Amino acid sequence: MSKALRITQHGAPLDVLQFIEGDTTGARPLDPSEVRAAVRLAPIHPADINVLEGTYAALPTLPATPGNEGVAEILEVGSDAASAGWRVGQQVAFAPGSGTWRQRMVIQESSLTTVPQGLTQEQAATLVVNPATAWRMLHDFVTLQPGDWVVQNAANSAVGRCVIEIAAALGIKTLNVVRRPELVGELKALGADAVVLEDVKLRKEARAITGGAPVRLALNAVGGDSAVNIAGALANSGTLVTYGGMSKQPFRLGTGQLIFGDLRARGFWITAWYARATRAEKDAMLEAIARIMRQGHLTPSVDNIFSLNEYRQAITRAMEPSRPGKVFFRP
Amino acid sequence: MSKALRITQHGAPLDVLQFIEGDTTGARPLDPSEVRAAVRLAPIHPADINVLEGTYAALPTLPATPGNEGVAEILEVGSDAASAGWRVGQQVAFAPGSGTWRQRMVIQESSLTTVPQGLTQEQAATLVVNPATAWRMLHDFVTLQPGDWVVQNAANSAVGRCVIEIAAALGIKTLNVVRRPELVGELKALGADAVVLEDVKLRKEARAITGGAPVRLALNAVGGDSAVNIAGALANSGTLVTYGGMSKQPFRLGTGQLIFGDLRARGFWITAWYARATRAEKDAMLEAIARIMRQGHLTPSVDNIFSLNEYRQAITRAMEPSRPGKVFFRP
Repeated sequence: MSKALRITQHGAPLDVLQFIEGDTTGARPLDPSEVRAAVRLAPIHPADINVLEGTYAALPTLPATPGNEGVAEILEVGSDAASAGWRVGQQVAFAPGSGTWRQRMVIQESSLTTVPQGLTQEQAATLVVNPATAWRMLHDFVTLQPGDWVVQNAANSAVGRCVIEIAAALGIKTLNVVRRPELVGELKALGADAVVLEDVKLRKEARAITGGAPVRLALNAVGGDSAVNIAGALANSGTLVTYGGMSKQPFRLGTGQLIFGDLRARGFWITAWYARATRAEKDAMLEAIARIMRQGHLTPSVDNIFSLNEYRQAITRAMEPSRPGKVFFRP
Repeated sequence: MSKALRITQHGAPLDVLQFIEGDTTGARPLDPSEVRAAVRLAPIHPADINVLEGTYAALPTLPATPGNEGVAEILEVGSDAASAGWRVGQQVAFAPGSGTWRQRMVIQESSLTTVPQGLTQEQAATLVVNPATAWRMLHDFVTLQPGDWVVQNAANSAVGRCVIEIAAALGIKTLNVVRRPELVGELKALGADAVVLEDVKLRKEARAITGGAPVRLALNAVGGDSAVNIAGALANSGTLVTYGGMSKQPFRLGTGQLIFGDLRARGFWITAWYARATRAEKDAMLEAIARIMRQGHLTPSVDNIFSLNEYRQAITRAMEPSRPGKVFFRP
């Protein structure tokens, strides 16, 4: 029996979240394909809040323990999981949505991912969702070469910052759109090549910013006018990938951007990627990201770390709009 | 010297269109790569009206002769054009936008397309744009098998009707959205498998209509709410192709349709296809369409045929919203 957070219904986070001292979900005997793990550190992401509220697209069967990701240590390994190579003491992370806000987890080995060596615990606990989203979007839609340009909105978001740092490590240049002028210097320090405010009309200005280089990939987490604006930076036959809709406005494009500009609009969801990726594909990506992390990049700044029974403070803090860093649980 | 229509500026069609008795553009000596052709029949398309108005995306250098397509007979062949296989007396059509509203044309042989045998003159004069648009959209985005379903809005448009007839000939089933109930029977007679009105919510109803079969391709000529509605019929990872924006509303999709439904939005413009296609690709497509035409399909109903000097009547008639058929020039 161990400690966990749990919801039995959706609603205002502090109304629905429960602290359980006698959680048994991590205590039952293992099936051969399962492992038991002790969660060491788990972040509170905006998507976690949306799960509590019931507004996220993929919701768990209730009752459920929230927590999209985290880093854990394997305590016990079923026989088939052992054959698959998992070992007691190994550091692991999980496919998104596995429910990390608890001390003990029993989980199918197919939902585990290896944590590469040499990462800080904070890096390991935030590897699987945001850096992976940025990595895949920079690789799965357009073949980019060093020197190529990518444009993105919400450049100050967690994924947006990962895009900047990963792109910089790969030699790919980023044109970043933000809402607040005070972010310009901060994102440039992270490796952003150009940072502009939302009122810059990229259809007219993008080529001047890139020195005439075409932009073939746009990453959109906002929707509405902002998506139209970054689409305007794209060269003919460019691809716009949507991974969020922060503006709550629908995704829009001018009809002419599609027909005469041959723009391609796609969507990306990291959870679906993990569901279809092989273990080798996951390992290769996480190791590639870890190489960048070990150079000191993709390090989340820590705002606060709470224990599970401090969940009211933790959630309240995580929902404040102007935190300087990430809020974590240490179960 | 021959007869032609011409514009020297854009504006209201009857204000800007001029009838020229002494057109010399088709009279000059040929370059080796050119042919001279006599236009026999040329339709008036909505896009032609948009060219006159200056609202079309691709506008000719002025002064220019309008006319997106037509069928012609070769009168004279330059030496290189002869080496490429073109012969006096041969029936030809043209890449879109070649300017067919005149008696004589001098044109690069690379802009010619072969007209397959056994077509009526009306079929030959309307082969290159609308049936080709429908054909390419049914082939270039999703690999469809007989029995697969496609959804489209503007099903009563010229391209929409071509989609119905070509899909029926290929054994592909069509779910068609129209605005007026009186069109249901007419489109079913053309080969439509299902015809519904715009207020049917396809996100809920599509699977009942297709008997549970997934829909992987949607064709959109409307935009706005209608695009969102037909996108709702698509299965996960389906593709929505936009080729028009009749509603004058921007193209929209729900963010969740992109991210969680993995929908892919593309655009299609037949003019760009002709610009990049090889002659063998053009010939193969036109022959495939002609096989369907020779079975009595894709036959435009003729509303009226005018000579060039009757252009005021012709354009006026072509701009009436409820014509029963196509208006043509016989230069």
